[in-house]
This record gives sequence, C-alpha cells and structure tokens, in this order.
Amino acid sequence: MAETNRQWIFLKRPRGPVTEDMFELRRSRVAEPEAGEVLVRVELVSLDPANRSWMEPVPTYKPPVAPGDVMHSFAIGRVVDSRAEGFAVGDIVEGMLGWQDYAVLPAEAVRKRNPRHSLENLLGVLGITGLTAYYGLIEVGKIKPGETVVVSAAAGAVGTIAGQIAKLQGCRVVGIAGGPQKCAWIVNDLGYDAAVDYKSPDFTRELASAVAGGVDVYFDNVGGDIFEAIIPHLNIFGRIVACGALTNYNSEVALPGPRGLQIACIVKRLRMEGFIVLDYLETWDKAEAELVSWIDAGVLKPPVDVREGFENLPRNLIGLFNGTNMGKLMVRIT
Amino acid sequence: MAETNRQWIFLKRPRGPVTEDMFELRRSRVAEPEAGEVLVRVELVSLDPANRSWMEPVPTYKPPVAPGDVMHSFAIGRVVDSRAEGFAVGDIVEGMLGWQDYAVLPAEAVRKRNPRHSLENLLGVLGITGLTAYYGLIEVGKIKPGETVVVSAAAGAVGTIAGQIAKLQGCRVVGIAGGPQKCAWIVNDLGYDAAVDYKSPDFTRELASAVAGGVDVYFDNVGGDIFEAIIPHLNIFGRIVACGALTNYNSEVALPGPRGLQIACIVKRLRMEGFIVLDYLETWDKAEAELVSWIDAGVLKPPVDVREGFENLPRNLIGLFNGTNMGKLMVRIT
Repeated sequence: MAETNRQWIFLKRPRGPVTEDMFELRRSRVAEPEAGEVLVRVELVSLDPANRSWMEPVPTYKPPVAPGDVMHSFAIGRVVDSRAEGFAVGDIVEGMLGWQDYAVLPAEAVRKRNPRHSLENLLGVLGITGLTAYYGLIEVGKIKPGETVVVSAAAGAVGTIAGQIAKLQGCRVVGIAGGPQKCAWIVNDLGYDAAVDYKSPDFTRELASAVAGGVDVYFDNVGGDIFEAIIPHLNIFGRIVACGALTNYNSEVALPGPRGLQIACIVKRLRMEGFIVLDYLETWDKAEAELVSWIDAGVLKPPVDVREGFENLPRNLIGLFNGTNMGKLMVRIT
Repeated sequence: MAETNRQWIFLKRPRGPVTEDMFELRRSRVAEPEAGEVLVRVELVSLDPANRSWMEPVPTYKPPVAPGDVMHSFAIGRVVDSRAEGFAVGDIVEGMLGWQDYAVLPAEAVRKRNPRHSLENLLGVLGITGLTAYYGLIEVGKIKPGETVVVSAAAGAVGTIAGQIAKLQGCRVVGIAGGPQKCAWIVNDLGYDAAVDYKSPDFTRELASAVAGGVDVYFDNVGGDIFEAIIPHLNIFGRIVACGALTNYNSEVALPGPRGLQIACIVKRLRMEGFIVLDYLETWDKAEAELVSWIDAGVLKPPVDVREGFENLPRNLIGLFNGTNMGKLMVRIT
C-alpha cells in the first residue's frame, strides 16, 4: 500500500469538556493485515456521547482510550485486503475502526453488514444507535400501547429513532430538545406528539403541561436537571431507561444525582435501569429485521447529520456536546 | 364500653425531624362498631420509617395523615366487638389501627392473623417488615447463591431479617450499621459475614475491604451518603433494592441523589427499583409460609425491640430516626 494512513491520535485526557488540542493528526504507513486479519478503508465514523466516557481512565464496557492511541470510534468501511476466511475485498464491515483512514483488525473484531442498505443507515438506524433506541424502549422500558413516553435529547441520534419507535408501538411521545428549531422538527418531521424546549425560561411549566397525564417511561439520554424535572411526573410503576448522561460526561467531578429520586423510586415503585446494546447481541438480527421492515414501509425515517472530512473529526465531536447535530452525527472520511 | 379511648392526635406537619410537640394526647369515648365493622383493642403498634413519609402533605401509597387525625400506624390487636361477618371476639387482626387504645374499622380494612404465632412475630417478621425483606431480596433484588449482598440499616427492623434471608439463600452478606455494638451484634447473633460501621472515620476504607469482590445487590434502607459510597463497588448487572431512604425522610428539602449513579447505571447496567410490599399481596401467604418454616427450623431469628407504654409512642418514633432500636421497633399499648 503506497497510500499513507492519516490518524487522529488522542494526546491527553480531558478534565471537563473535550477540546481540539487533545488530538494530533499523524501520518503513518498503511499496515498490512496478517493471517486472520482484514484491512479496512474507513468510510463513515460514528460520533457518540460515549466517546467521551472512553477518554476517562476507568474501563467502561471496553478498555479506555489511552493517550498515544488512535482515537477510538465505531465506524463502517470496506475491506480492501483480507487474510481472514469469510472476508473478501469489497465487504462492508463495521467495528471499532478508530479515527483513521485505514484500520487493521482481527476478523472477529469486525461485523460484516448487508450491502443492501446505505452506509448511513447501517451505521445509524441499523447500527448501535437504532438498536440502542429499540432495546432501550422494548426490553428495558417495556413500553406498552397507550403509555406516555418522554425522550430527552429527542433530536439526537438515539432520540430521533426512539421517538418514532415509541409511536409505532402506540405510545404518546413527548420529546425534550434544545431550541425551537429542534422542537418543531421532531414534531413536524418525526411525529412526536409534543416537544418541550429545555432552554425555555418556562421549561418546568411547559413540561408539566405536555405530560399532564403523567409519564410511564422516561428514556433518559441526558441525566442532570432534565431527569430531575421528570421525576415528579413519573407515574406509579414508571420506568427510567438510563441510556445516556450527556450532562455528566463533560464534568470534571461526579455530579449529584437527581433530587427526590430515592423517595420517588420507593413511593412510586419506579425502576431505573441501565443497559448497553452489546448485551443483546444475540437478538440483533431480529431487531434489525424489524427496523428494516419499518424503514421499508416508510414509517421510520432515520435522520442523519453527515459532516465531511477527516480533518473535522475533533471539532465535530466537540459540536456533539454542544447540541449542533440533528439526528445521527457521522463524519465521512474524505 | 365504659372505658375511654386514649388517642395520640397528629397536630402539625414537621419541617425536618419529628418532635414531641407534633402530637397531643386526647381521651374520647370508645366508638361502637356499625354494621360491617369491628372494634379492635390495639395491642402492639409498629413504628416504621414510613410513618414519617405519611406526615408529608403528598399522598404516598396511602393518603397522608392530616393534622387533627389520630396518628396513623400499622398495628395488631384483638377484636373486642364485631358486627362483621367472619370476625369474632378474640380474633387477632392487623391493619392501620393508629395510635389509640381502640380502633373501629370496616372489616375489609383489617386482616385476620393466625393465633399460632406471637403478636411480635405477626407484626414483625411475619408482617410487613419480614415481607418487605423477603420480597425486596427475592422479587426485586433477585438474589442468587454466591452473590454478595449489602444491607444498610442492617440492625434495623427490615435489615435484621434481610441479612438472614440473604444468608439462607446462599449469599455473602455485609451489613452497614451505626456503632460497634450494632456491628458486633449483626455478625455474632444474626450471622452477617461482615459489618461496617458507617460512623467510623475509616468507613470508606472499611467498606472497600468488606466488599472487595464487589457488590451484586445493595438493599438500600437509607439512601444518601451510604448509598453513594456503595455505587463504585457495584458489580456489572448489580441491583439496588430501593426499600427506604431514612436519611431523606426528615429533610425539609429533597436531597440530591447519589453522585455518579447515572453513569454507573449505564456503564454497569445497574437496575434500581423501588417496591412496596402491598404490591405482592396475592402471594403473602406463600411468603409467610416460607418465613414460618425458617423460624420453625431455627434458622431465622426475628429480633424485636418492644417498648412499653402508650404514652411513649411519640418519643419512640423519634428514637427510631436516631437509630436507638435493634431489630423491629414496636410499642406495647399498656
């Protein structure tokens, strides 16, 4: 391979928000796959709030990214060289490819995907994002027709899919998003029954009015004050799907949990449960088939927010925490 | 009935801790039961942390006690007059009898109990206290043999039973209690594998050493700082049984939730779930039979802390929040 491999190197752990000086662009030779490995041309990189958690020194469900490593990320691309059985040049694969043009990985670390779908859909609604929304609502939240579901970060990657899935299951769905543009978008384009702008000075009153019948399931992507504001509205036997804690990720110290949670949990018999989509690996095919059927039927629209250019990876990750994206944020490696 | 009925009247809602001036002793005539009602001589009154919650103006799983009402409480006694089918003089019944010598209630508001057992056991281990420990561990915590279970307020009413049930299920059990006397007692007399004194200046280190292999189930009776201290030790797929929030009950304002809960919930896939023993009403007989079998076999010791005297009800309730009891606190009406 004559081409060079551009790589964004993670230089130092953040204390607080992510900044551009935490990354350095390096060029190296493209590595060659050894026996059992594949060489993948990275095409689309997924930017996710979880990326921030991986920068902490403590292991999560995967080892942390260490200073000096190529920045970790989930991504999708095409096999350009294979020394692994079952993988051929041109195959579409996804995995922890990282912020680089080319990745060499053992075959068992990538997953072959169906070329019938667009790369955007494979990485978004048919990837971890869509599955997170699906399992969070169906398996963790156990939503039932007629229930009221509130989704925070409703205009984000998971939120845009979660709201639509909850509607497809016959729920009333209220989204919480930042700013009138996002609020209008999730109602008019994505079918949310109502939207509440958390930046509004009247947020508390507007929330109360949007969820007047109480909340059965709160799909939490943010934690913090918004979670706290939901607690008084939760119905008996309400469920909190702990999917993300966006407001916590950039904090230097562990933030206090929401006020009133413990007593509400007891008195209202609430269940708060965290999950990671990887725990459901063995039923992914079935979930994907259901998501595909909804997309094919035109009842599930997967909004993607694709930015261009390898060099823009760090600033787009930073933008993610400032809420600049609408739908699933990904960067095309050009 | 010639006898007078002593009643402790709830005068005003607390802002913070309960104090004696919130109650007033009154005497009235003993009421006579009407059709469908029973007159019960109250014999043993249960004092429970939940009593404090009922003093708040917001309904919990039952309406609040209103200023001017006889103070609410769960209690057990004997029927002394009956105009209800199926109830005869001498029957032992339990229910929300309140802080008074005599209570008149509709028959459907009391439950007839088996006279084979002592009143203390009926009100404690075979009553709501024991059932709370049982359902909390078995149904909510879903404890499994070999798991490590931590119980807070381990020397209290529910804690003393919960620790023993967890041991009977093959778990390793660590109790958290206040002071060396309680800690020694739960290990030596109740079979806890280890005890940690939350009043010790070395609490954090002592806790870490007692739960070195991690915590699978945390049976939370207290909330607050102790809950927060447990979070880093919870294992993946750990469960938090939200049974009580003793540290919150006396607070004037809603206290912040434990720091780090939300991120830990996601990364470690924790489940935090509240429950109320009344939700399991239909299987109480089965649970009681299992508790009885353990008591009969001598493997479950139900510690009771019985105080004497109607006039001492308010000060004993206050004492409950100061941790003065070891085992189930009840007051004999003499």
